[in-house]
Amino acid sequence: MSRRTVFFVSDQTGVTAETMGHSLLTQFEGQEFRQVTLPFIASIDKAEEAVRKINATGQEDGWRPIVFSTLVKEDLRRVVKASNGLFLDFFDAFLGPLEGELMVKSSERAGRAHGIADQLVYSTRIEATNFALAADDGAITADYERADVILIGVSRSGKTPTCIYMAMQYGVFAANYPFTEDDFDGKQLPASVRGHTPKLFGLTISPLRLQQIRNERRPGSRYASISQCEFEVRSAENLFHRHGIPAIDTTECSIEEIASRIIDRKGIERRLRP
Amino acid sequence: MSRRTVFFVSDQTGVTAETMGHSLLTQFEGQEFRQVTLPFIASIDKAEEAVRKINATGQEDGWRPIVFSTLVKEDLRRVVKASNGLFLDFFDAFLGPLEGELMVKSSERAGRAHGIADQLVYSTRIEATNFALAADDGAITADYERADVILIGVSRSGKTPTCIYMAMQYGVFAANYPFTEDDFDGKQLPASVRGHTPKLFGLTISPLRLQQIRNERRPGSRYASISQCEFEVRSAENLFHRHGIPAIDTTECSIEEIASRIIDRKGIERRLRP
Repeated sequence: MSRRTVFFVSDQTGVTAETMGHSLLTQFEGQEFRQVTLPFIASIDKAEEAVRKINATGQEDGWRPIVFSTLVKEDLRRVVKASNGLFLDFFDAFLGPLEGELMVKSSERAGRAHGIADQLVYSTRIEATNFALAADDGAITADYERADVILIGVSRSGKTPTCIYMAMQYGVFAANYPFTEDDFDGKQLPASVRGHTPKLFGLTISPLRLQQIRNERRPGSRYASISQCEFEVRSAENLFHRHGIPAIDTTECSIEEIASRIIDRKGIERRLRP
Repeated sequence: MSRRTVFFVSDQTGVTAETMGHSLLTQFEGQEFRQVTLPFIASIDKAEEAVRKINATGQEDGWRPIVFSTLVKEDLRRVVKASNGLFLDFFDAFLGPLEGELMVKSSERAGRAHGIADQLVYSTRIEATNFALAADDGAITADYERADVILIGVSRSGKTPTCIYMAMQYGVFAANYPFTEDDFDGKQLPASVRGHTPKLFGLTISPLRLQQIRNERRPGSRYASISQCEFEVRSAENLFHRHGIPAIDTTECSIEEIASRIIDRKGIERRLRP
């Protein structure tokens, strides 16, 4: 079976076209796809160049390429649609029904989804990201007042990337606090998070997976030993349980899924929409 | 004009449904939409509950809601499609043509796009994110060997969030180095980046916008003064020009756009696809 080429064509970054195409392609297991993004196709010239690339690739491959497109302007869409590829355009499919429903014409303005950002959105996102970076790994615990959520869990359970993702994707202010061995001495929560129980959310992970992750970082260390990982995970889960802190097992979850589940379960308000 | 409610319904996180819906809605200016995400609709029960919510909202609003859906399984899709909302499903629209083209049935497996991640993807992303955090703000310049790209620019020109975004979205290893006043003394690039010219990419920004951003951070400081901002931006741009370093003006750009343009212009290979 020869390999198909898939093009993501966009007048902007291509993020939406890639997201849409990727969701669809993962439904076809066992198929191999070569993926090419053609971003910033914002003029007729560029669109014609894209068509030449698509057609040439089709000739080389011996299969017609699949083209996922998010071209907002109809004149650009028309050009790329005339290529030899299978043309699947997102606006083509949905703008018509939406226009009918809302009883207005769409504005055909490019660059709204991931283009020129309005400054409030930009600032919110940067502010949330800076907060996540500043309040990472137990730093600036005094700033927990400003946090929407505080993730707690053992080292390498996924706290940092989840906080950053929540900041960038949703503008959520997320801090995190890593348990250390001292935190497992008593039955109390660590002093720095104790007063913030309603904001706490626990991340847990299978000891085996934790061991793998830690071992990549510090091979052969006590920190990466299975007994240490088991002890820490069990102790952390006991704390979650004892104090009624909701928690999620991150072992099989992507960052998107962890973030989304936390927001869903805590009922956190999103300051941004993708 | 009354406000429409828009639902994003997904068997997973809802990220794809939100991305798709948002791209479309921004084409309708002047309309106000209330946005509700219903993630993890992965059973018939949950789907029926979603339908009840959609229908109740339609009754309250006096307008039928708009439903953007990314339900992979046909039985779930059928349930939600029967709501009173305008149903726009992404898989409904595109799976058919793709199945025809590839001559196979789709696997109807949920959770492929942002669900259970394969561990290589997960590790790549975490590794790239850790790299971005470790190599942020001129730290660990010794590690520039591992970098795919090194962003340079004045403080607050957008380097940090762009690096983190490139790591999380594309698995790209991005470091950044902030210019300080000392770097503007001579005509040379700062010593720590000098040997890495092919990896350098400049970020610039309008002095006025820079002043606003800095002023939010340190109001009334010399750092935030317009003369200082003008001096730094001019000096940075001179350095880019003198050493042939490609650069982008971030003043009107979203993080996605900055990242995407850098990857496009430097021809950086993406290790991940969204």
